[in-house]
Amino acid sequence: MYRKILYPTDFSETAELALEHIKTMRKLGGEKVILLNVIDKSEEENLLSTIFKIFNIGSKEREEIEKKLKDESLKKLDEIKKELESLGFEVKNISVFGTPHEEIVKVANEEDVDIIIMGSHGKTNIKEILLGSVTEHVIKKSDKPVMVIRRAEG
Amino acid sequence: MYRKILYPTDFSETAELALEHIKTMRKLGGEKVILLNVIDKSEEENLLSTIFKIFNIGSKEREEIEKKLKDESLKKLDEIKKELESLGFEVKNISVFGTPHEEIVKVANEEDVDIIIMGSHGKTNIKEILLGSVTEHVIKKSDKPVMVIRRAEG
Repeated sequence: MYRKILYPTDFSETAELALEHIKTMRKLGGEKVILLNVIDKSEEENLLSTIFKIFNIGSKEREEIEKKLKDESLKKLDEIKKELESLGFEVKNISVFGTPHEEIVKVANEEDVDIIIMGSHGKTNIKEILLGSVTEHVIKKSDKPVMVIRRAEG
Repeated sequence: MYRKILYPTDFSETAELALEHIKTMRKLGGEKVILLNVIDKSEEENLLSTIFKIFNIGSKEREEIEKKLKDESLKKLDEIKKELESLGFEVKNISVFGTPHEEIVKVANEEDVDIIIMGSHGKTNIKEILLGSVTEHVIKKSDKPVMVIRRAEG
């Protein structure tokens, strides 16, 4: 029933907690994992326009920075991929620029996954928030079952 | 990892969808299910005070009505219990008066369950709401992993 799993990660601590649940799914019939990192387009644009203003860089350098961000994302995904492959999972990595919750819902449908397993909070969420906005949007907008793993206390 | 499961139900269609996921958990190592129905105290009080006003009934009749509501709840839980027991689960039924999300979070802790599996919406939720308020509160307030099963479309 949970053969194909979508694991969206922003490489935060809570996402790492969710990874432990993904691993368990191997023993429970899990076969394929779609590893997804969404590079937040709005955040990245803010960052780039700041850099642009300060250093007066052009579109070519901008492309280079984007490439670097993506390379870094793919490199981090690849580490997780290897870890999951050693457990017997088939793994597909996806790294995209965009709005995280939109891309997560989109990929879940495109890949027709059986379940989404994700952390309750991303790395940018402050302690006081009870549920991260990306996770909240995904639960509200996806038709797929969503397993939410809570952020560790403290 | 998901040996002990809390299944809160208000006997709605979406809760029935969640039940299918509970059943699957049997093959995936699930051993014990806590079946929980919370009789909404505030709703019930509204109902009773209306009846009280119309028929001018006293506290004795009120107790009788409460007993009847609880009997009905336990009867419905018992049907699900039998179904789950036939699959090999150990099942414990709990029926309480209270505020649904508070009781769900409380029972999850008291019973120290490994996961809560529930529907995205209860029976009182209108179509337009993206996530039912009980489910939203449970996700936000419980430390346990929560698996949210979406309401069927249409």
